[in-house]
Amino acid sequence: MSDLNNLATQFVQYYYSVFQSDRNNLKPLYRDDSMLTFEGAPFKGVNDIIGKLTSLPFQQVAHRIATLDAQPSINNGIIVMVTGELLIDQETNATRFSQAFQLIPEGSTYWVLNDVFRLNYG
Amino acid sequence: MSDLNNLATQFVQYYYSVFQSDRNNLKPLYRDDSMLTFEGAPFKGVNDIIGKLTSLPFQQVAHRIATLDAQPSINNGIIVMVTGELLIDQETNATRFSQAFQLIPEGSTYWVLNDVFRLNYG
Repeated sequence: MSDLNNLATQFVQYYYSVFQSDRNNLKPLYRDDSMLTFEGAPFKGVNDIIGKLTSLPFQQVAHRIATLDAQPSINNGIIVMVTGELLIDQETNATRFSQAFQLIPEGSTYWVLNDVFRLNYG
Repeated sequence: MSDLNNLATQFVQYYYSVFQSDRNNLKPLYRDDSMLTFEGAPFKGVNDIIGKLTSLPFQQVAHRIATLDAQPSINNGIIVMVTGELLIDQETNATRFSQAFQLIPEGSTYWVLNDVFRLNYG
């Protein structure tokens, strides 16, 4: 399990670092089959998903990972659930979030088939 | 998407109602391939998983679902992410949780291949 957790941690850290620097560059991590459910709203395919992510109304965001758990899934995929906090723009109060991914192997890397994101309001 | 959300909601409500009444009765919802990661600790197979769930040190627990999102997955599976609150025994302060499932179809019902559970401490 530890190799899988390492792989998942590397992927998620990379994902959030790209998210923080330029959300357009997340494009290679999604495919036409990819799905995003963002705060309950569904998006399908790389263009819709990147359109949503790049339209989010903030300039800067930092993800702090509190927990990250990975399990093997169907066809060598990986299920990942992340919980943590978001720091948005100049705000000093973090917002908690939960996010689940299903990652699909392709060559030596992975792409995101399923992406479910929720803010957790207190 | 709404049929899938309905299916997932029915499954999760049923799962939590069984969890609340007698955790032993969750056994038919897991298989030998099932995985549970509970607060970071991994369990594999129906016996280990039920052993863990039935050994949790509380008598009564109620799950309050705050959000539930579902997406179609590989081979007609369903990915579900739930966030909500747990009320344990006589405690009056709820504890937040996040849980992700991957459900696999079998006949007219589903079983749990992946189950990731985390408490979200404030």
